[in-house]
Amino acid sequence: MADMQYLLRPIGLVESPLKSKDACPKQGYEGAPDAWLVIDPAFADGLDGLAEKDEVLVLTWLDQGRRNLLKVRPRGEMSSPLRGVFSTRSPDRPNPIGLHRVVIKEIQSRSRLKVYPLEVLDGTPILDIKPVLSSVAEK
Amino acid sequence: MADMQYLLRPIGLVESPLKSKDACPKQGYEGAPDAWLVIDPAFADGLDGLAEKDEVLVLTWLDQGRRNLLKVRPRGEMSSPLRGVFSTRSPDRPNPIGLHRVVIKEIQSRSRLKVYPLEVLDGTPILDIKPVLSSVAEK
Repeated sequence: MADMQYLLRPIGLVESPLKSKDACPKQGYEGAPDAWLVIDPAFADGLDGLAEKDEVLVLTWLDQGRRNLLKVRPRGEMSSPLRGVFSTRSPDRPNPIGLHRVVIKEIQSRSRLKVYPLEVLDGTPILDIKPVLSSVAEK
Repeated sequence: MADMQYLLRPIGLVESPLKSKDACPKQGYEGAPDAWLVIDPAFADGLDGLAEKDEVLVLTWLDQGRRNLLKVRPRGEMSSPLRGVFSTRSPDRPNPIGLHRVVIKEIQSRSRLKVYPLEVLDGTPILDIKPVLSSVAEK
């Protein structure tokens, strides 16, 4: 398995007023701002079917995450005991994929989506967008 | 942005009785079986803090997904109109990352986790495990 590797290619980038890690809330619901998902026009056809007011899951690549950490202090608080990264939402993890539940507030020119709330840095690569499933299992 | 690319390295593999795509339910809650998350021992420290009965999100790499499709018929039904992949949960998408909400039923020898329900094929690479957040925003 050590030989297995896969290549991700971003489908777009986040435009956000958040310009430094210190400015980013730990979670979207902790005061994160509106942000734009700027999708590469080559992928715009994949957005058909999304509409304003839809709730979606946005997957990002947290490119400033440290991939060699397996233990972290939750929320970066030095008084917290170390925990395995897979029991936390730390951006430091082997594959630093961010998962964000947002609402689409506006769609411009087929490939720019204003969403809320999003806690990632300006310039963060976007990997995927998925609808929220309305089943019990999704909740 | 066309130049940006990132390398994923799986943290483990799924062991499942599901041996063919046709056998896989479309969603976990549609009759998917128990499966084992077999984590590479090199990443076992990252599991500390996870316990039986925890609900977690498992991210997988759907390595049989077709990455060049931007429109699909939801659930593979030929009578459905084509939709953009980002408004569906199709495994065919530019970055075929699977997202699965499961319960941990059992933990064996620190790096084998029995989970339920999981609808992916035997041998599917595992990218990440994240706790379900209990906030309203996660629901």
